[in-house]
Amino acid sequence: MDTFRVLEIKKSVFENNDRQADLLREELKRNHTFLLNLMSSPGSGKTTTLMATINALKDDLRIGVMEADIDSDVDAATISTSGAKVIQLHTGGMCHLDAGMTRQGLEGLGTENIDLAILENVGNLVCPAEFAVGEDDKGVVLSITEGDDKPMKYPLIFKESAIALLNKADLLPYCNFDMAAAKEDITTLHPGMDVIEVSCTKDQGLDEWCEWLLSRVAAKQKKGE
Amino acid sequence: MDTFRVLEIKKSVFENNDRQADLLREELKRNHTFLLNLMSSPGSGKTTTLMATINALKDDLRIGVMEADIDSDVDAATISTSGAKVIQLHTGGMCHLDAGMTRQGLEGLGTENIDLAILENVGNLVCPAEFAVGEDDKGVVLSITEGDDKPMKYPLIFKESAIALLNKADLLPYCNFDMAAAKEDITTLHPGMDVIEVSCTKDQGLDEWCEWLLSRVAAKQKKGE
Repeated sequence: MDTFRVLEIKKSVFENNDRQADLLREELKRNHTFLLNLMSSPGSGKTTTLMATINALKDDLRIGVMEADIDSDVDAATISTSGAKVIQLHTGGMCHLDAGMTRQGLEGLGTENIDLAILENVGNLVCPAEFAVGEDDKGVVLSITEGDDKPMKYPLIFKESAIALLNKADLLPYCNFDMAAAKEDITTLHPGMDVIEVSCTKDQGLDEWCEWLLSRVAAKQKKGE
Repeated sequence: MDTFRVLEIKKSVFENNDRQADLLREELKRNHTFLLNLMSSPGSGKTTTLMATINALKDDLRIGVMEADIDSDVDAATISTSGAKVIQLHTGGMCHLDAGMTRQGLEGLGTENIDLAILENVGNLVCPAEFAVGEDDKGVVLSITEGDDKPMKYPLIFKESAIALLNKADLLPYCNFDMAAAKEDITTLHPGMDVIEVSCTKDQGLDEWCEWLLSRVAAKQKKGE
């Protein structure tokens, strides 16, 4: 028995994605819904991060999740076990979501009673960074197993994101990952960016990440946005 | 002192990529050059795999490598230490290579004395699978740290590839990766596909991978292709 919907989203017909993103941002402002666009390579641990995040924040925030994937429903099935509202979006082969596609997802999810809506974008360190989806913030997850050279190889996603989670930090002893170098590269690309080391399976850094999210959502609601 | 060129490749002007790929394939046939299109997520270990491969095969084959990246030259710098011929291709933001872009890379590399040309495609499990580049074979590298659900989430790249390398197998004890399930999913998507477990830092599975490459190159040369 499925506890979530699967929505086959259509390719957007809008040429001006930035304009569509601004319109969506205004609508979310009226609903007092904060939208986080969470991006990363495949397999960096976005879904596991979200499971831990929902578990930690479920008494503080009403959370809704959109799981965007080319195919399969495994992520929505996982998130549905957390009790959060969730919808699976199938992109029909598209490697990223744009604002029009995100609108379809938000309409499918329903944002009336959602404080924090999270789009788990398609696993891809390149294309999603190029398309605004009406988000309040973009966030990037980088697994330390991917290597410390990734920020400089994929600069745009770090320049666009307000926060970087350096995930799977528990695997540091088994990988050649220079944490200091990676952080320096990230702050060179995007000075002042928040960077947190986390391990979602070992409960490391999650408090700091959840406080960051709570403060961002609270700031939006305080401004009456 | 750089020991490799950096080429800023231009977006292709050709509408029919498959036709361009066929033309390139015919030219490579005349040069007796085998072209492997190697694809994966960012950080799966393509470059480390290539370093180990070049080291193992450098007495048997003349190898040339095209390193495609959005930015940075770190991969070409790494490969250049192996003694193999290498060129860094900057894609100008593009998330994949197509046949026209690959042609520019091959011209920059020079294929006259190359038995095995390898394109290390942009780190991306989605878009590169959609574009033929004139290759003899596509190969996909999946790091076991990315999770065993990836084949079903990114089916096209497995359907398109002749071989899958399941890399970083030395990290199996520290990850929740079901090897049997992953292999079953891969062969469900692409029956008969070659799948090899490797660890390029621990010298595991490399012999089998190198034998596969040698047999593919030899088969092409034998046919007078």
